[in-house]
Amino acid sequence: MAIKKGSEYIESIRKRKIDIFFFGEKIENIIEHPNTRPVIYSVAKTYDLAHVEDYKDVMTAVRDDGEIINRLVYIHKSKEDLYKRVQLARLLSKELGTCNYRCTGSDALNAVYLTTYMIDKENGTDYHERFLRFLDYVQKNDLAVTGALTDVKGSRALRPSEQPDPDMYVRVVEERDDGIIVRGAKIHQSGSYAAHEIIVLPTRAMRENEKEYAVAFAVSPDTEGVKFVLQFNSFEAKRALCKDCSIELGIPKYGIRGTAMMILDDVFIPWDKVFLYGEYKYTRNLIEYFTLLHRMAGAPCKTGFADVVIGGAYLLTKHLEIERSPIIRDKLAEMVSKSEAAYGIAVAAAYEGEKTDAGTYLPNKILANVAKLEGSLGFVKILTMIAELTGGLSVTGPSEKDLKHPEIGKYLQKYLKTGKASAEELLRIEKFLELWIAGPHYVGTLQGGGPPQTQKLSISAYVNWEELEKNVKNLLSEE
Amino acid sequence: MAIKKGSEYIESIRKRKIDIFFFGEKIENIIEHPNTRPVIYSVAKTYDLAHVEDYKDVMTAVRDDGEIINRLVYIHKSKEDLYKRVQLARLLSKELGTCNYRCTGSDALNAVYLTTYMIDKENGTDYHERFLRFLDYVQKNDLAVTGALTDVKGSRALRPSEQPDPDMYVRVVEERDDGIIVRGAKIHQSGSYAAHEIIVLPTRAMRENEKEYAVAFAVSPDTEGVKFVLQFNSFEAKRALCKDCSIELGIPKYGIRGTAMMILDDVFIPWDKVFLYGEYKYTRNLIEYFTLLHRMAGAPCKTGFADVVIGGAYLLTKHLEIERSPIIRDKLAEMVSKSEAAYGIAVAAAYEGEKTDAGTYLPNKILANVAKLEGSLGFVKILTMIAELTGGLSVTGPSEKDLKHPEIGKYLQKYLKTGKASAEELLRIEKFLELWIAGPHYVGTLQGGGPPQTQKLSISAYVNWEELEKNVKNLLSEE
Amino acid sequence: MAIKKGSEYIESIRKRKIDIFFFGEKIENIIEHPNTRPVIYSVAKTYDLAHVEDYKDVMTAVRDDGEIINRLVYIHKSKEDLYKRVQLARLLSKELGTCNYRCTGSDALNAVYLTTYMIDKENGTDYHERFLRFLDYVQKNDLAVTGALTDVKGSRALRPSEQPDPDMYVRVVEERDDGIIVRGAKIHQSGSYAAHEIIVLPTRAMRENEKEYAVAFAVSPDTEGVKFVLQFNSFEAKRALCKDCSIELGIPKYGIRGTAMMILDDVFIPWDKVFLYGEYKYTRNLIEYFTLLHRMAGAPCKTGFADVVIGGAYLLTKHLEIERSPIIRDKLAEMVSKSEAAYGIAVAAAYEGEKTDAGTYLPNKILANVAKLEGSLGFVKILTMIAELTGGLSVTGPSEKDLKHPEIGKYLQKYLKTGKASAEELLRIEKFLELWIAGPHYVGTLQGGGPPQTQKLSISAYVNWEELEKNVKNLLSEE
Amino acid sequence: MAIKKGSEYIESIRKRKIDIFFFGEKIENIIEHPNTRPVIYSVAKTYDLAHVEDYKDVMTAVRDDGEIINRLVYIHKSKEDLYKRVQLARLLSKELGTCNYRCTGSDALNAVYLTTYMIDKENGTDYHERFLRFLDYVQKNDLAVTGALTDVKGSRALRPSEQPDPDMYVRVVEERDDGIIVRGAKIHQSGSYAAHEIIVLPTRAMRENEKEYAVAFAVSPDTEGVKFVLQFNSFEAKRALCKDCSIELGIPKYGIRGTAMMILDDVFIPWDKVFLYGEYKYTRNLIEYFTLLHRMAGAPCKTGFADVVIGGAYLLTKHLEIERSPIIRDKLAEMVSKSEAAYGIAVAAAYEGEKTDAGTYLPNKILANVAKLEGSLGFVKILTMIAELTGGLSVTGPSEKDLKHPEIGKYLQKYLKTGKASAEELLRIEKFLELWIAGPHYVGTLQGGGPPQTQKLSISAYVNWEELEKNVKNLLSEE
Repeated sequence: MAIKKGSEYIESIRKRKIDIFFFGEKIENIIEHPNTRPVIYSVAKTYDLAHVEDYKDVMTAVRDDGEIINRLVYIHKSKEDLYKRVQLARLLSKELGTCNYRCTGSDALNAVYLTTYMIDKENGTDYHERFLRFLDYVQKNDLAVTGALTDVKGSRALRPSEQPDPDMYVRVVEERDDGIIVRGAKIHQSGSYAAHEIIVLPTRAMRENEKEYAVAFAVSPDTEGVKFVLQFNSFEAKRALCKDCSIELGIPKYGIRGTAMMILDDVFIPWDKVFLYGEYKYTRNLIEYFTLLHRMAGAPCKTGFADVVIGGAYLLTKHLEIERSPIIRDKLAEMVSKSEAAYGIAVAAAYEGEKTDAGTYLPNKILANVAKLEGSLGFVKILTMIAELTGGLSVTGPSEKDLKHPEIGKYLQKYLKTGKASAEELLRIEKFLELWIAGPHYVGTLQGGGPPQTQKLSISAYVNWEELEKNVKNLLSEE
Repeated sequence: MAIKKGSEYIESIRKRKIDIFFFGEKIENIIEHPNTRPVIYSVAKTYDLAHVEDYKDVMTAVRDDGEIINRLVYIHKSKEDLYKRVQLARLLSKELGTCNYRCTGSDALNAVYLTTYMIDKENGTDYHERFLRFLDYVQKNDLAVTGALTDVKGSRALRPSEQPDPDMYVRVVEERDDGIIVRGAKIHQSGSYAAHEIIVLPTRAMRENEKEYAVAFAVSPDTEGVKFVLQFNSFEAKRALCKDCSIELGIPKYGIRGTAMMILDDVFIPWDKVFLYGEYKYTRNLIEYFTLLHRMAGAPCKTGFADVVIGGAYLLTKHLEIERSPIIRDKLAEMVSKSEAAYGIAVAAAYEGEKTDAGTYLPNKILANVAKLEGSLGFVKILTMIAELTGGLSVTGPSEKDLKHPEIGKYLQKYLKTGKASAEELLRIEKFLELWIAGPHYVGTLQGGGPPQTQKLSISAYVNWEELEKNVKNLLSEE
Repeated sequence: MAIKKGSEYIESIRKRKIDIFFFGEKIENIIEHPNTRPVIYSVAKTYDLAHVEDYKDVMTAVRDDGEIINRLVYIHKSKEDLYKRVQLARLLSKELGTCNYRCTGSDALNAVYLTTYMIDKENGTDYHERFLRFLDYVQKNDLAVTGALTDVKGSRALRPSEQPDPDMYVRVVEERDDGIIVRGAKIHQSGSYAAHEIIVLPTRAMRENEKEYAVAFAVSPDTEGVKFVLQFNSFEAKRALCKDCSIELGIPKYGIRGTAMMILDDVFIPWDKVFLYGEYKYTRNLIEYFTLLHRMAGAPCKTGFADVVIGGAYLLTKHLEIERSPIIRDKLAEMVSKSEAAYGIAVAAAYEGEKTDAGTYLPNKILANVAKLEGSLGFVKILTMIAELTGGLSVTGPSEKDLKHPEIGKYLQKYLKTGKASAEELLRIEKFLELWIAGPHYVGTLQGGGPPQTQKLSISAYVNWEELEKNVKNLLSEE
Repeated sequence: MAIKKGSEYIESIRKRKIDIFFFGEKIENIIEHPNTRPVIYSVAKTYDLAHVEDYKDVMTAVRDDGEIINRLVYIHKSKEDLYKRVQLARLLSKELGTCNYRCTGSDALNAVYLTTYMIDKENGTDYHERFLRFLDYVQKNDLAVTGALTDVKGSRALRPSEQPDPDMYVRVVEERDDGIIVRGAKIHQSGSYAAHEIIVLPTRAMRENEKEYAVAFAVSPDTEGVKFVLQFNSFEAKRALCKDCSIELGIPKYGIRGTAMMILDDVFIPWDKVFLYGEYKYTRNLIEYFTLLHRMAGAPCKTGFADVVIGGAYLLTKHLEIERSPIIRDKLAEMVSKSEAAYGIAVAAAYEGEKTDAGTYLPNKILANVAKLEGSLGFVKILTMIAELTGGLSVTGPSEKDLKHPEIGKYLQKYLKTGKASAEELLRIEKFLELWIAGPHYVGTLQGGGPPQTQKLSISAYVNWEELEKNVKNLLSEE
């Protein structure tokens, strides 16, 4: 039950046949294709980092039976585990500069673990046992797992059961002896095609008349009927256009967050991989547990990104020889403050976490949401401050190909050097910053894990308003 | 060595002769005077709360010898202790709605403990032993202690030794066999006159030619030559004018933060109470340790205030029957987020604290500063949001005396009632909010513990910029 | 028809019998009483400034018949007039450092002028003629006029007609041959008791079944049944306590905004002073016109305050010898930017104003609201920045009486001096800033003229969303 | 002297030989190339709009001799002209959704007009006459003109004359009988290659020993030695990759701001086109005049963009059927407020403009800077609010090619429709928003016209601090 290496992970998915489309074409080989490769490399690094001596404490965990597994497939059994989960998120973001892609899997595994335990306990079903078998299989084989939540939703004014097209939320269209047939689509799926298993969960709490939508299951990306369409944003275009580029790509190896839309075209799921079906009352729990874990982890994820991007901004100020200006120092310190704040709140969400009936741990409900809310707003503020700091070359600079062009290259070499940096060094850091301040990160930060509004709704629901009211009334009346 | 009760504390200071002035007059009895009484009551409550069963875990601590003491005079021996310190700050702020006045004492005791340990270890002096005796005396008698830092500073463009008047920073003007004579003044002293002992520390790091300014000692407020002048702001005026008021005072019993200016008019300090003298190199340490502890604690202090003020805002929206509006709920949730963020970062500063050579614990340097910075900015944002929410009556409402006036009272009763609240109830909560949104809290929050700029300077100094630079360079180059 | 002098204004109101209460007592003489005197002096200055040569262009206007009148009682007849109205607001705020108290009167006169014109034109009534007579009387005698809008409102969940107590909005309780009897109360009335005439308007649009609430009229403060209760906030307390103070009062002569609650205890209004009664459909117009003018003027009012307060902050930095620090300069410039922005938007609201059917001018609807919204948020930001800048003495400093105390005064003189300022100079500027950053200005700024939410609602209603949609669709489709 | 049509403009530049590089290749035809075409189309539209009846008042102006010319080549002769300049900026941004590329030219022409007038008047030179001839030529032929300021700067710690490589700022390397030879490079040049003439100005004030850098002149893009390298950011990559795309391009015809680096490789400039050479003292004036005009115009430029992007956001909320939510309406109104604020301040900068000695008009110095500062910060806030509003599909959506793909297209059509919009309609608006919230606009907004810091420095320099100090001192002392 050894922790896999990155190269082993890559081999394990090499032979797969996956229905995946990008920019109007089918991708033949996700390991080689420039627009999927960065995702594969990122996932591979989550394996390799588990072998780095300094990181083992964070990257791995010990099961009850003493087996050492990757923490990304672990079930949290203590506050310290939650704290390690926070450190894990920061570490991976800092090492990759992008999504690690297994983070939703960790949160989905923990959410399903607890929910199936509850359903069985209250209803005498056997979901938890099924899930434990699946979990053991995942842990033993150190599988890459993602979680899939966001449905396409159709009309936002109607509930799932009210949609003219009933497939706007993933649902069971047929029940068979050996399993179920599911239909629907999930959007914003970070790296799902690179996973061994995808855990599909409902995106919202379902009601009694929405039992067909109350379904949770695992599915492998190479299952018949599963189709992926890769995102196509401007950065994907740059990668597609500039296959041999390095400087242009900002972070050449790991790139930006690679998402896809996943379509479930009447896919068969055997009962062994079905973890909830029809128990609509528990859909709320399932989503709540996932969300708490994911929002806690979302904050240090941004801190890890901030480590990278503040480092980049600092390097740029050194290239420009302005790093000692009081105004610059003030701004850099403010960025650090926003970044560390996100980390700090998440740490507190972990330490103020609570033990569940199933013996697992969930973060503090309010602090987990606050971590995500303040963390994402803080990171967006950091990005804006950097956009204010950089001199504009991030978006107006020439390409690396021009830099090497026989005729024009020498002029760029001459005119884009600074006192401390060569033209190449300057362009490299500017293009790196482009990735962050002129790319998908603003949207990704604000929308990933739900937009700020959703965290405020959660906070409002969790606050004990009566207790606050009572406390203030005491102060008002005490003479 | 029992923990004192509030009433015992009050008795212990009743007979003292203190030189204290307010609004052009000498105060004869600080226990009875309307402008000092709230401070006495607040300190008294820090004693009484230690006897509340539910709060004992936070309010008290166990010394190595097994004695139970008030946590406000305790030396932190673990991360858990730092965490309790954070909870203590929030609890006291929430229970009092104002300063607890012993908080600076706690931080000063811990800072002096560690600094004297270091000086002695490196120089063979006996400051630490002296201090341990003093500490034992404080703990055994459960004394109220404050810390005094901020000098009057004179010209901000000159160092202490360069001032035309050499007394702009507290200094030793004479060295005697039995002790030293000190002169100078400290401003912004929260509740110092109500303390049993005041620990005086330098306000900045001193240089070799500033040895006379490198001095730390304890002094009792009733020592000859010690004089206090109470703050006189508009809220003090209200208290002075309206001695029999209740509603007007917002928090009738505990009021607002009561500060004073403390003048040391050639005061004799026996050697037993001198904890540093001349060792200018350690002044930086002393201030750093105090500051780290105080900034960590400053954040949950604001969260406790926010608990109170958000509770008040919520109560007002109920009185006005607007508490279900989506916009109102959104704003209240945002306030909670800012407040809990401050708490969370401080919790993290505690858990990521570090053991010192003296066996004590200091909070994480960056997180402690981030906690204070984000906490104070967040609380100010909360206050502004509440000023946006309240309908204006907080500053335009009539007085409680008008409400009871035989002629005009009935009109006010009629016209200031809402659907859910009587005129008195409405006015009470509006006047309570006045305290926060139209009083000294904006300034107090931003200036207490140092203005935001100072925290940014500290953060900038503590960040490992080279490590950030190295990390980003790795990402830029990895292919 | 000469413009009155301040002294004449004061004489004109000296003999009045006004029912006015403060802090549980009846005020006998509003000209002498410390808590009403600043309002009288402020209004008086609006007369005197009209005689200052440099200000005549702004302070006065020429009627169609060539008579020169104070611009505060003028009906705007051009865009240039609206622009002068903007400059007037800034000038008065800058000269007074507080409310000029006649501003609501100017806006009410203009709103009633236009509304009565419309009602008559569409209904053949004679309101406009009545109003023109009243206006002529006001202009000829250069009367101080205020506008009264905000009702007490009772339950915010119910409309006027649904309130258990029908008097929560001012209404007509009896119609007589010679006039009407009105009952109700108006809150937040700035300086109304110091006016010659108060124009009472509804606070919201009324419906068909609310005709008794659809009423607008003029009333003099000394009319039988009119009663005032002065605000009692902490600054009023300071004034009441410290009758011979100067430094303490911040702006000794003009003080803070003085508001009162006005109760109409079955007051008789002769038909001559009734400007709308029963025409519920026009209540929306009346409020809209008043609001547009008042929101346009609200912004430069804040810029005038900002001129004062930024000047104060600058002076403080000079006293402290930190005015050349890059960080300080940056902050001061940011304050100026927020302040001038408010002014600029208001100027644009004037220049993009529109001519009405009555030949008068109204500001641009969107820009008037934007001016108020951005202006008030900007001024609050300025206050917070100043709270960040000041060293805390604004709220912790001793009183001016202590400064002169025979025993303690010399210590304060010694210790509160800086390199550039005496203790008195330093305290004076700190106490001046207290007025702004630790007083009613946060609330006053955000609530006066309606809280930010109301401006956003107005903006949303005025935007031509379909035009924006059409424009973007063009861009999307043009190939 | 008729105003040209867009098609005539295009023909006028068709035959030019321009040295221009993109992504490692020489562009043969800037009219056809996908990455330069949008710039050509944008400039062409500035011609066509001058023929639209409704826009003639804004788009054209009348010379003293009665000739009607395009306002983009006009010298402002009144406040009304400045106001029209503001409207022009908004109109063009709203019609194009991108840069109009002739805006810097307008500001450069006006700045050079005034500066040459001053130099000649004080020194008896003939620059102004030369310039008038050039201006007449430009106006008569309705030429597209841009201004070129930003030098590459080399080490930011050194002045132009101190750089190891003396070519880091454009300079004269040789003086000849018939003209001068210039060398250097300008970056961030918006659409310069599409201009008929480029006016090159110094980027900073020069000193006596920097006379060779004190040079201003006009140059045509097809002059020998002039070379351009196009920007290569991710959006350029998308255009380069997806030549037949429509939806993907957001604004298919006009695209994003197209900038280039311009290299002056020892270019000969005849004396007729040299407008300043050696008169270092006037470089400060030249830059100040340009900057004032450009900052005034920068704000309404952003308002025009905001018209487009808020329209897009509104359309998206309609597609998603959430446009009636109170929270959504609140956010849209807040966006409008930020946008109109920018416009309003610029209008005020125009109306408070001042006549110069040369008879031209310059905007109010403080307001012009405030307009730019608040306008750019406001627009960035709008972008962030939209990033918060959009559901994420802006960066995670599939490409338009997938939508039409024979195999996968039908699934996308099914799953990406909403209740109100087809998949294509939804993707189109999401991709349009991508342009703004995941592209170069954050940086472009904050850096174009100088980063916020530079506006604050200007404001600080222009404020009359002594006057503010004097005013507050009056208020402090008046009793």
